[in-house]
Amino acid sequence: MADAIRALAIDAVEKAKSGHPGMPMGMADAATALYTRFLKYDAADPRWPDRDRFVLSAGHGSMLLYALLHLTGYAGMTIEDLKHFRAIGSPAAGHPEYGHHPAIETTTGPLGQGLATAVGMAIAERHLAARFGKSLVDHRTWVICSDGDLMEGISHEAASLAGHLKLNKLTVLYDDNHISIDGSTALAYTEDRLKRFQAYGWAVKQVNGHDPAELAAAMSYAIRSPRPTLIACRTIIGFAAPTKAGTAAVHGAALGPDESAGAKQAMGWNYGPFEVPEGIKEKWEAAGRKGQGARRSWLKRLANHPQKDEFERAISGKLPEAWHERLAGWRQQIAAEQPKIATRVASQKALEALVPSIPELIGGSADLTGSVNTLVKGMPSIGPGEFGGRYIHYGVREHGMAAAMNGMALHGGIIPYGGTFLIFSDYCKPAIRLSALMHQRVVYVMTHDSIGLGEDGPTHQPIEQLAGLRATPNLHVYRPSGAMETAECWELAIKRADGPSLLSLTRQNLSETRTDAGENRCARGGYVLEEASGERRATLVATGSEVTIAQTARKMLEEAGIPTALVSLPCFELFAAQDASYREQVLGSALRVGVEAAIRFGWDQWIGPDGIFIGMTGFGASGPLDKIYAHFGITAEAIAAAVRKRLG
Amino acid sequence: MADAIRALAIDAVEKAKSGHPGMPMGMADAATALYTRFLKYDAADPRWPDRDRFVLSAGHGSMLLYALLHLTGYAGMTIEDLKHFRAIGSPAAGHPEYGHHPAIETTTGPLGQGLATAVGMAIAERHLAARFGKSLVDHRTWVICSDGDLMEGISHEAASLAGHLKLNKLTVLYDDNHISIDGSTALAYTEDRLKRFQAYGWAVKQVNGHDPAELAAAMSYAIRSPRPTLIACRTIIGFAAPTKAGTAAVHGAALGPDESAGAKQAMGWNYGPFEVPEGIKEKWEAAGRKGQGARRSWLKRLANHPQKDEFERAISGKLPEAWHERLAGWRQQIAAEQPKIATRVASQKALEALVPSIPELIGGSADLTGSVNTLVKGMPSIGPGEFGGRYIHYGVREHGMAAAMNGMALHGGIIPYGGTFLIFSDYCKPAIRLSALMHQRVVYVMTHDSIGLGEDGPTHQPIEQLAGLRATPNLHVYRPSGAMETAECWELAIKRADGPSLLSLTRQNLSETRTDAGENRCARGGYVLEEASGERRATLVATGSEVTIAQTARKMLEEAGIPTALVSLPCFELFAAQDASYREQVLGSALRVGVEAAIRFGWDQWIGPDGIFIGMTGFGASGPLDKIYAHFGITAEAIAAAVRKRLG
Repeated sequence: MADAIRALAIDAVEKAKSGHPGMPMGMADAATALYTRFLKYDAADPRWPDRDRFVLSAGHGSMLLYALLHLTGYAGMTIEDLKHFRAIGSPAAGHPEYGHHPAIETTTGPLGQGLATAVGMAIAERHLAARFGKSLVDHRTWVICSDGDLMEGISHEAASLAGHLKLNKLTVLYDDNHISIDGSTALAYTEDRLKRFQAYGWAVKQVNGHDPAELAAAMSYAIRSPRPTLIACRTIIGFAAPTKAGTAAVHGAALGPDESAGAKQAMGWNYGPFEVPEGIKEKWEAAGRKGQGARRSWLKRLANHPQKDEFERAISGKLPEAWHERLAGWRQQIAAEQPKIATRVASQKALEALVPSIPELIGGSADLTGSVNTLVKGMPSIGPGEFGGRYIHYGVREHGMAAAMNGMALHGGIIPYGGTFLIFSDYCKPAIRLSALMHQRVVYVMTHDSIGLGEDGPTHQPIEQLAGLRATPNLHVYRPSGAMETAECWELAIKRADGPSLLSLTRQNLSETRTDAGENRCARGGYVLEEASGERRATLVATGSEVTIAQTARKMLEEAGIPTALVSLPCFELFAAQDASYREQVLGSALRVGVEAAIRFGWDQWIGPDGIFIGMTGFGASGPLDKIYAHFGITAEAIAAAVRKRLG
Repeated sequence: MADAIRALAIDAVEKAKSGHPGMPMGMADAATALYTRFLKYDAADPRWPDRDRFVLSAGHGSMLLYALLHLTGYAGMTIEDLKHFRAIGSPAAGHPEYGHHPAIETTTGPLGQGLATAVGMAIAERHLAARFGKSLVDHRTWVICSDGDLMEGISHEAASLAGHLKLNKLTVLYDDNHISIDGSTALAYTEDRLKRFQAYGWAVKQVNGHDPAELAAAMSYAIRSPRPTLIACRTIIGFAAPTKAGTAAVHGAALGPDESAGAKQAMGWNYGPFEVPEGIKEKWEAAGRKGQGARRSWLKRLANHPQKDEFERAISGKLPEAWHERLAGWRQQIAAEQPKIATRVASQKALEALVPSIPELIGGSADLTGSVNTLVKGMPSIGPGEFGGRYIHYGVREHGMAAAMNGMALHGGIIPYGGTFLIFSDYCKPAIRLSALMHQRVVYVMTHDSIGLGEDGPTHQPIEQLAGLRATPNLHVYRPSGAMETAECWELAIKRADGPSLLSLTRQNLSETRTDAGENRCARGGYVLEEASGERRATLVATGSEVTIAQTARKMLEEAGIPTALVSLPCFELFAAQDASYREQVLGSALRVGVEAAIRFGWDQWIGPDGIFIGMTGFGASGPLDKIYAHFGITAEAIAAAVRKRLG
């Protein structure tokens, strides 16, 4: 049966003339043991909520997964699809892409991400089991990973967190093949992997990755283990290839006709390309049906479960009916009381309204809880063996946090949010990108979002981060100007079921910019906050903490007889999605002035190359808040002076 | 003597009303042992090349370093400077900033970076010792790091690499205080750190971090060890603070008057704020002079050394006289032969000219050597205990590679370059940012720079990376269009002594765009590659692999009677630095059309909001090269059609 995987991997890579045959050929035995004996799944229902999750962290070996899906009888992965491996529009893309096939649990390829995402899935399972009981939620998470995955820093963050939390239902099959792209792992990677994972609190096993009995024994052990388990499968990359097996040559290129033929001969595989003999296909399809009984009895349990409706709602991602009522109350309160608070605190207030209303919200922070204001009352911690809580202390592991949030969102039943400083979005960008690529509802709470954080200086002051994030497709970046906009942005982030949102929030207190609590004005991305008193001669366009600075500048200009409008632009992406006439009306045809304590890069789309920009031109500096804005010339006086100068 | 550090840390944080007193108070004893007995330094000459390097990876504890520099008698860190801790322009910034004081070896603060940078310093020392001999290069690298450093993924990459390379002259003092910002490390961080580092191949020791004898014994052990050493110093954060010691409360805020007074009382420190009694100051200054003898004998050895001039040239960062002669030859060859090669291959050709000419060039790749073309002949590998080579197999450790390159550049005597795929610039962005912030000559070779990489699909196709990198202050991003521009960009990157450069290179072959080999035309960032045949009606502005596509489009438009110019724009930053009249002349006043297989974000500065942009609007897709450009509409036909449509 394993040879069927190998043969399909050889043929598909050969036909595509590109791809990675080595890993599928090496891990075919381990995957066969998993899919025939241990993985709980039913090929007839790939989205069955209580299925085991399987993550191919070494995503370059995608043909392993596609072969398995085809052989076990999943719809939508036909032999024709395999013949179109790596072609545009094929479900069998170069790397496994979430959304291309319902049984692809996550997008993998950037190394380490799959493993770290799986940690999130395993947390989600434990939490939902605590919430709904074992009769509805009781499944495992399985990962296949490579040397590359384990070399990446994110693997450390994820594995250390998983060990800490004692995620016993997580098992990693490590393809220990001693080969990486540059050659032998001895060139660069000689750490003791088993000892390292033991240090993380994992159970570990070492097996011959081509011995089904050893593999099965290790998987049985993993299932009984009270800790996450790493099974190092000693394999030969490109197993069966006559001359290239065990070398880097078989990692990332087609074998070529001779080597392919030799491999098939070595396996005793006497069939044409893409041909799987009936007997072997039948065995595989029987394996694909093995979980039917488990699924049927689960469906029965669900039908009789008192929380049936709530479970189905949660898993579907539908919000509870009254989810925004408390938030509406908080918005009324803002309008009435005009609090002068930092937007990070306003975010906490919004969360105080949302968390009790939406049980799916699971918060956390990368060891900055008190600074990023992500914890609210009624959120006990999730800790080792204790998964009923709703708050995760991720430790100083920004990247691991972001990937775990992806895993929770992908698992379903959870809406994760997590906080760190905006500067550290750099540390988790690869996982943020995957949230966007996979259209997952993950909310990033990123505070201390400018030089306004003060004394911590240039290493902590974001300058180019907003530009880099706004450039990321499908990510909504919000930079609210006060408590009201923060509440509105949170509302939009929660409502957005098909993509991630990032809130850029201040450390410093701000005067409230809004008195109205009706329409969610942030929904259009940008709007006229204050219209000019006469025909506009200038339009100030600002975001976040700079809106109140621009407000003062507007007042100065108005007093100087220059009718000036003020536009708040909390979300570039939503504003760009409005029709051109709305945008023109908001931005106007008078002199446009952008104001943001960040780099100009990206602003010319709103203000044009001839517009004035008041912001940063380089890195920040260490100094107190009251001095730092003046030091960099981001003041109401500077704005007003620049406008007066330009208007002559 | 340690109490003097504590008192100064208390006073400076108290006066600034912000900062981190806990770590300096906890690690004062370890730092005292290091600076009085082990660290080789001479406060009179902070840049002495054979000094030991000290890196405070836990940069938030910056007052520890500033107190040490002040006490040991370094110029430029006066008691007045300490009174201006965290003020604008002070050498005593919130976090240690490279360039603010000559004894600050590197900028730290973003956790994990210091440790990973130190690994690069330690590699540099070993390599230069192999090149110049032990009589000129024989020093150690010492690091103080925290729990936060060790939780970060980059610590894994760096420590695993250091263990692999057996960097025996690297010693890490780990402030094992059981406290992080959220509270006890038991909340999130329970791995066995010593076992983990043993797995990496490090020697480890555990000591009472307040016992000078234990500390000294462990440091002596580290010096003798044939491997890098981690010394876990069990400390009490905020040691001596009567109520806050051992709690998170002392980590990141001033103690307050009562707690400060209590701490001083507990220490028996009966002096006013910023007062250090003469006797203690004298002892510290004696420690600061202890290395004078070693420095003087080193100077004598240097004076008599046959490689004196070469050593001084290398350390100063000055290039050898004839460094670009071979490159000039290669440029002549390009003009004559018009090679049709990928720019990644053109980069290798440029390196073949540069590597033999500049002994300081040390190359490497994050396990993509064959793909990113960073290895050329005459570059033996640097391996465990073998440091005479010039090429580093970094493993799949992009972040660790980038930080190590920072460390090598900071150490001096090395010009590091390292390669990976452009998409993985996301994985190393925090370290790239530090290259830019610290003005270090580090060259990033980033290939597979667009959808042009083909089948590997959206996880591997950069879309927003160029925007994010171009937005980063002080980073030069080059996207050359062919072999000639690649050679020119390499020349500029090498010449640029005060900042990092990043080369964005193709996987796919390109037709050569240039026939002239005289002036380095990339030096102005952008230039007219082909002028219009008559008065311009359109200007196509393209970069990298899209220049030849635009070239074809220009031809089509010219044939259709539309005079069209073609501008190549390999470097936004250099083009932005030209005077406005040059830029206007290049870009012209006709319709501007940007062409780049990436997101539009940032392009409006050149083409304006009304310009046409032919590029990407979202993530890429898996498919072969010949299909993928057409799929996304980035073709000469599409460019020409868009221009014709706009011109009516």
